[in-house]
Amino acid sequence: MAKANSLLRHVVLFAFKADAGDGVRQVEEAFCRLPQLIPQIRSFEWGTDVSPENLQQGFTHCFLLSFASAEDRDAYLVHPHHQAFGKLAQPYFAKVLVVDYWVQG
Amino acid sequence: MAKANSLLRHVVLFAFKADAGDGVRQVEEAFCRLPQLIPQIRSFEWGTDVSPENLQQGFTHCFLLSFASAEDRDAYLVHPHHQAFGKLAQPYFAKVLVVDYWVQG
Repeated sequence: MAKANSLLRHVVLFAFKADAGDGVRQVEEAFCRLPQLIPQIRSFEWGTDVSPENLQQGFTHCFLLSFASAEDRDAYLVHPHHQAFGKLAQPYFAKVLVVDYWVQG
Repeated sequence: MAKANSLLRHVVLFAFKADAGDGVRQVEEAFCRLPQLIPQIRSFEWGTDVSPENLQQGFTHCFLLSFASAEDRDAYLVHPHHQAFGKLAQPYFAKVLVVDYWVQG
């Protein structure tokens, strides 16, 4: 399903294990390679948390991906390059949070 | 602090109490009024979670605001209209999560 004039946002938050070490950089770099490998990714940005509100609940990294349709998001989720990324990254994660939403307002 | 050619993203996730009832709509509408009331908000969008991954940890609403500088974000946080919104919304929240990041990649 696609919605006219809208994008499907895919918000991904990571908290890393205390002993993740260089794994943090490896995960950042591997995630940043995905837009070149998976054509369904319409836009991609990321950054590390700088909020002063102390409501980040341990999450330090946010990645924001956009898709043109639910089908494109679904194709991304099962894409071999995304699954390889998950396999590489999983050992370093303390927590992962994902929400998707259609852009409104 | 502003970063050249960058935006400061402010990602806000809400989980509502089971008995929030019409409070959910009130919070949505009140948040959506803030961009008209607080000039530091450079862009604003939101939506409700449609992720199939079951990693949303109870969060149902995502609001994505952008600011041109940390000073603008700070002015937003203490703005009387933002504080009034918080007072209205707080009773309906089960959880709130906030991360801010400078756009990269």
